[in-house]
Amino acid sequence: MSAVDVPVALLGYGTVGAAVKRLIDDNGDDIERATGHRLRVVRALVRDPRRERSTPAERSLFTTDFEQIARDPEIKLVAEVMGGLEPAADYVLRLLRAGKPVVSANKQLIATRGAELFAVASEEGLQLRFEASVCAAIPVIKVLREALVVNNVYRVLGIVNGTTNFVLTRMEGGAGYEDALGEAQRLGYAEADPSDDLSGADAAAKMAILATIAFGSRVTLGDVICEGIEDVRREHVSAAQELDMVVRLVGSASLVDGSVDVRVQPALVDRHHPLAAVEGAFNAVMLQGDAIREITLEGPGAGGQETASAVVADLVSVVGTSGTGFLQNDACWRTLARLPPGRLRSPFYLHVEVEDRPGVLARVAERLATQHVSVARLTQRQLADGASLDIVTHEATAGQAETAVETIGRLDEVHRPPRLMPVITDRPV
Amino acid sequence: MSAVDVPVALLGYGTVGAAVKRLIDDNGDDIERATGHRLRVVRALVRDPRRERSTPAERSLFTTDFEQIARDPEIKLVAEVMGGLEPAADYVLRLLRAGKPVVSANKQLIATRGAELFAVASEEGLQLRFEASVCAAIPVIKVLREALVVNNVYRVLGIVNGTTNFVLTRMEGGAGYEDALGEAQRLGYAEADPSDDLSGADAAAKMAILATIAFGSRVTLGDVICEGIEDVRREHVSAAQELDMVVRLVGSASLVDGSVDVRVQPALVDRHHPLAAVEGAFNAVMLQGDAIREITLEGPGAGGQETASAVVADLVSVVGTSGTGFLQNDACWRTLARLPPGRLRSPFYLHVEVEDRPGVLARVAERLATQHVSVARLTQRQLADGASLDIVTHEATAGQAETAVETIGRLDEVHRPPRLMPVITDRPV
Repeated sequence: MSAVDVPVALLGYGTVGAAVKRLIDDNGDDIERATGHRLRVVRALVRDPRRERSTPAERSLFTTDFEQIARDPEIKLVAEVMGGLEPAADYVLRLLRAGKPVVSANKQLIATRGAELFAVASEEGLQLRFEASVCAAIPVIKVLREALVVNNVYRVLGIVNGTTNFVLTRMEGGAGYEDALGEAQRLGYAEADPSDDLSGADAAAKMAILATIAFGSRVTLGDVICEGIEDVRREHVSAAQELDMVVRLVGSASLVDGSVDVRVQPALVDRHHPLAAVEGAFNAVMLQGDAIREITLEGPGAGGQETASAVVADLVSVVGTSGTGFLQNDACWRTLARLPPGRLRSPFYLHVEVEDRPGVLARVAERLATQHVSVARLTQRQLADGASLDIVTHEATAGQAETAVETIGRLDEVHRPPRLMPVITDRPV
Repeated sequence: MSAVDVPVALLGYGTVGAAVKRLIDDNGDDIERATGHRLRVVRALVRDPRRERSTPAERSLFTTDFEQIARDPEIKLVAEVMGGLEPAADYVLRLLRAGKPVVSANKQLIATRGAELFAVASEEGLQLRFEASVCAAIPVIKVLREALVVNNVYRVLGIVNGTTNFVLTRMEGGAGYEDALGEAQRLGYAEADPSDDLSGADAAAKMAILATIAFGSRVTLGDVICEGIEDVRREHVSAAQELDMVVRLVGSASLVDGSVDVRVQPALVDRHHPLAAVEGAFNAVMLQGDAIREITLEGPGAGGQETASAVVADLVSVVGTSGTGFLQNDACWRTLARLPPGRLRSPFYLHVEVEDRPGVLARVAERLATQHVSVARLTQRQLADGASLDIVTHEATAGQAETAVETIGRLDEVHRPPRLMPVITDRPV
């Protein structure tokens, strides 16, 4: 390419779209220095061009007609910042078919329709970049695909949902679940309907994308084992603190003997583990691979301008690698089996509330031993109506731990269903 | 480029060079999937081809004659992994003049001869990449140059020396300085002569490179204000712990009113700051910019294969952007003034040992007030021969704080020179 303008179109002009235009307008010189090209936003697809915008733009920027973008040979690049599955998927497919590389900020789209979209991108020899779909400005996709090419990444651990991390951090400070959630909503970290965050569904979509890229094998939303934070209680958080750990909603993607396990669930994280330091609405992703050992990236995982920053970085990268064959293929080059969910190994934390009478501890310990789950640490504490046991186990399979917990839950002396969470630590428990 | 082999030469074949060859050999398929090309290491410049190598290689790989690399039109890319200033600088210049893009792992070279090297690379329209020169596999240069293009990065904070971070972390655990250093040497984290690490010189070279890229203005080693950890004592580390902080050797590069300040010095880091979580020999770099707010990258900052991973990532990136104009210019596009060293603002920590008699505290406080340095927190503690004062101030300029400390040091009641360190925190002190 010669040093000419690169006309860009946006699908959508909400908070992110407007911020993309502003960043491109304000930093044209920086982009030109990096790429030799000047990006120019020439068209934005909107539903109502007359709507008032927080970032004013000339009326001529807007169109309600997708064809004005798809059929305009001038437009060299498109950023999809409209969200939702349809018509976004249809639009992206048609743009790729029309020879235009696309940058998307849409995690639902990439996590559920990725296979189809990337197949078309590959056929057309075009890039489809999607940095902004995972953790906003944290450049984890770029790092995975461009910096860790020779690293055989075998594990990705992530705190990839800011709302739940905010709630759990506040609970560490003593707040109850409902109060912490209310505060997150007041501060704009949580939606009015935060169920996708709290249930882990939002984190699951991001983990599906990360696992796909890390392991080169398609992982869709439905492949992700997912549990939210709705049942995390103050006593789990306090017990974690006494164990020098914190409770976090952790996404993990693991490659075990050639099979893939991807899950999102509340976990106890050792205070000395890099993920334990992630506070408030921040996100972090740890990548573990052969040559690098581990690299952790941390930052704000949401926000209009943070997301827009990642969209612009992708646009810059498309321009900067145009015509080279770089990343113009699907990241998925193999089909790995799913690891049976019970097979993933980890140390575990177990919280059991029991009647305080002789022999209970022995019966709980015996149920663990039967499943070959070995106790590393145990604290018994007096409750008003009995006692609580906080147990950290040595490494076991999820299946062993779950079966043990199920049999413990059936004991007469156990008051309510025990709570099981994996423990994330770099050190012996 | 068509999908053909890309012959690569190495300058040097020590731990890093051998690991580069091994990573390229073992991961050829991954590289081809990413770039459409196959890298092949065809030549390595060594002093003695007969020397035994930890990674065996065919004798025909080695040459002692640089011209066999510079003049070989087959060789498309060169990785400089020999270290040292000369002949490395001469070789890199001649390779660029011969039309070959270069990847370097040499922080001394980039930090001291960067201007000259990048000028030639720009003239020739070639890339000179240097990810491995700063924090090994942590992809901070790629993130700065490619992901944060539109972010106006205004501050870079880094723990960029693993040896000193290991020593300080061990001191937190109760070890003395000498014991901690001895342990670092036994574990291979510190050289037999660790003076470049302890004095901050190693960190200063890395911060010069990071500041140059972040601000687009040349910062050389000589521009970096530098203080090592030699005078950090157990009592500073304990006092920090009582303040819920940790002592770290922190590199900071700041853009203040269009002027640049780059320094390396021991600092107190708030336990809730992302850098406080960096333990042992790990490194981390925090980038603060307009749209991203802040992104922190953490990982191992040294090691043969970790460094080699970054070298290979750079080789892959050169191939992936070849012929596009991407990053084929010097990152320095402006010349910013140095901020007068006394002008940088920060909260400070001050440790003073005094005779325990009436009026001393008042005199210390008065010296601070005269310089408009305002006390946020103060702890007085009994010592065998007097008392110690641990003071955290509100934000002040370094000049005000240093002048205050100087006048306090001249008080008759002050036993030895007071210790002043900046405080790194995101929160009000």
